Amino acid sequence: MKIISFLSDFGLKDNFVGLVKAIILKINPSVQIVDISHQISPHDIIEAAFILKSSFGFFPKGTIHLAVVDPTVGSRRKALIVKTNNFYFVAPDNGLLSLVLKEERVIKIVEITNSDYFLKPVSSTFHSRDIFAPIVGYLSRGEKLENFGREISNYNILNFPSPIFKKNILEGEIVYIDWFGNLVTNIDEKTFKSFIRKKSFKVQAGNFMIDKLSFSYTEGDSSCPICLIDSFGYLEISMREKNASKILRLDRGDKIKIQL
Amino acid sequence: MKIISFLSDFGLKDNFVGLVKAIILKINPSVQIVDISHQISPHDIIEAAFILKSSFGFFPKGTIHLAVVDPTVGSRRKALIVKTNNFYFVAPDNGLLSLVLKEERVIKIVEITNSDYFLKPVSSTFHSRDIFAPIVGYLSRGEKLENFGREISNYNILNFPSPIFKKNILEGEIVYIDWFGNLVTNIDEKTFKSFIRKKSFKVQAGNFMIDKLSFSYTEGDSSCPICLIDSFGYLEISMREKNASKILRLDRGDKIKIQL
Amino acid sequence: MKIISFLSDFGLKDNFVGLVKAIILKINPSVQIVDISHQISPHDIIEAAFILKSSFGFFPKGTIHLAVVDPTVGSRRKALIVKTNNFYFVAPDNGLLSLVLKEERVIKIVEITNSDYFLKPVSSTFHSRDIFAPIVGYLSRGEKLENFGREISNYNILNFPSPIFKKNILEGEIVYIDWFGNLVTNIDEKTFKSFIRKKSFKVQAGNFMIDKLSFSYTEGDSSCPICLIDSFGYLEISMREKNASKILRLDRGDKIKIQL
Repeated sequence: MKIISFLSDFGLKDNFVGLVKAIILKINPSVQIVDISHQISPHDIIEAAFILKSSFGFFPKGTIHLAVVDPTVGSRRKALIVKTNNFYFVAPDNGLLSLVLKEERVIKIVEITNSDYFLKPVSSTFHSRDIFAPIVGYLSRGEKLENFGREISNYNILNFPSPIFKKNILEGEIVYIDWFGNLVTNIDEKTFKSFIRKKSFKVQAGNFMIDKLSFSYTEGDSSCPICLIDSFGYLEISMREKNASKILRLDRGDKIKIQL
Repeated sequence: MKIISFLSDFGLKDNFVGLVKAIILKINPSVQIVDISHQISPHDIIEAAFILKSSFGFFPKGTIHLAVVDPTVGSRRKALIVKTNNFYFVAPDNGLLSLVLKEERVIKIVEITNSDYFLKPVSSTFHSRDIFAPIVGYLSRGEKLENFGREISNYNILNFPSPIFKKNILEGEIVYIDWFGNLVTNIDEKTFKSFIRKKSFKVQAGNFMIDKLSFSYTEGDSSCPICLIDSFGYLEISMREKNASKILRLDRGDKIKIQL
Repeated sequence: MKIISFLSDFGLKDNFVGLVKAIILKINPSVQIVDISHQISPHDIIEAAFILKSSFGFFPKGTIHLAVVDPTVGSRRKALIVKTNNFYFVAPDNGLLSLVLKEERVIKIVEITNSDYFLKPVSSTFHSRDIFAPIVGYLSRGEKLENFGREISNYNILNFPSPIFKKNILEGEIVYIDWFGNLVTNIDEKTFKSFIRKKSFKVQAGNFMIDKLSFSYTEGDSSCPICLIDSFGYLEISMREKNASKILRLDRGDKIKIQL
């Protein structure tokens, strides 16, 4: 049974997610569709790219990853199928796939152009239902990649913020805030550890200073923030059983400084 | 494998949706249940009827559509199974099905009365779990329609607001606001185009005037609203990558006027 | 096809729920995973225990119930598999299972210790993905219980508030508020009816007095609260098509008094 993952900013109030699934199942009833999230902040390609990168590798080999945050739907932006050494990715060509494709070996990129597979009439506002869903349905049934369009060699890259080194300061930023209010930075474990090299350090998060790396969320006393390497693999600021984002008043894009 | 669609106002916080699925799967483990939405505004039969109408046709022929917004659960309101030329519908008889059934050819309507199929004891507050779910389960296994109750010929109709023509003005209203804040009106493409007949026009949405029909969400400059025919097939007011409902302060029931 | 139920406080914004499902399906693609809820209030073990107790029995015999509200993840708290006469339960040992296990006959309790089954490297913050999900996957494939760890005989109990009898007053409290704003108390039908014994009574909810037990939500006139036995089997305070919690300004932990 084929697995399809599905990531979007569609929310769960409307029928958008359900209709995409309906179309896929109409074409191939024997798939399992797994929602990654549909609550990506509206139009937020960077957030979607980050979550997709943090998710795709946990799925079985051969999974088709459908990812749609598509603010330019209906414009001339391309629609892509990318085959890598492990997976298929179906997404608009707006940078959404660029973090993922750094970690995978790209085998073929196809621009979706063959309208024989589309749901007619194709709306100008909901390509997930009218183009992406049927493409995923036929792809899951084993249709050949080349049938869907023409091979291309490029795709759009987005600028994901990198940590900055300034003398003895490493400056990162908050790139994601999870449901519990934990603050995920763009400083990955390797970058952090090679900067610290077991020296003493201070992490500045808003008005708070943190001077050690905790191992789990249960450390700290819920009045002071802690930092740890989280399950995304990044340095994260957290408060025990509290919403760190609300209490520290820190949001996406805010800087986190580490000083030796 | 049988597909069951499921629409409700149950939200996703409680266990209501999960229990309905548990009961269905207990009776027939080989179904695929696809959520249309469970975030219909509480008790809002009109919103549910609109979303169901905009969804049912995209599912495979033979799909059983379970739709429950049921403010009069436990009263003497009837519970229905409707067989049409393409689908089955299971719902309370409160008007929820009335928009859908305008578009389908009704073959048989059965009032659910045979308590042999019910989960005992039947609660007075959660018929989805105790009545609708087992009915859907047995129906998906091929149980004959007539076994569930007695055939009837009528069902309740709800008043869905229609656009009003006043001389050279077409007055519609906002009937749905999607997750992105787009304002869906009750003016469908055909009504709009036959009113406009390629003449120049002005759409009044709150304090804004829009004088052209856009093709996609990417038109406009995010400070002015645009209008377009959306994927529901209706005239929609939108703002580029913004929440039009919040910015224009327009809500369900607010009027939208089109002047030639 | 094996059914797995899944309850957590993970919310639906992040990829947490999706990744747990990905890991389970990677190990056993032929399972059906049914979400009970992922919107348990963050870290709220009591709420999770109440919802699990109100849900598990509706699933088919043999269902594996995965329940994770896990504020002490990464500490020395144990992880459990409990086999009962009807089901399997997989959860952290923090009291989450204690209400359920009062109603089931426990056959075997295993502390999960065999890291051969874990996803490596095991994070300190997301054991659902790295430990619980693979355990559930292998368990659903028929792996023997004893392979996962060592048999133990105890598990943690949590204090779920009980109603208190004071002369002719029965004092309960609100233990759950559902999506519609209905107030679920800890007074079950049996306790209520054996206290009342068909005498006249008054239920005090905030500033309101209710003097009869209604049968369904449709009674009352939407300006006065009613009480009824709900589908959880408890006394519930409700307002017709309104959010009783908001209007009465009552929240979890608030007392409800019944006077003869």
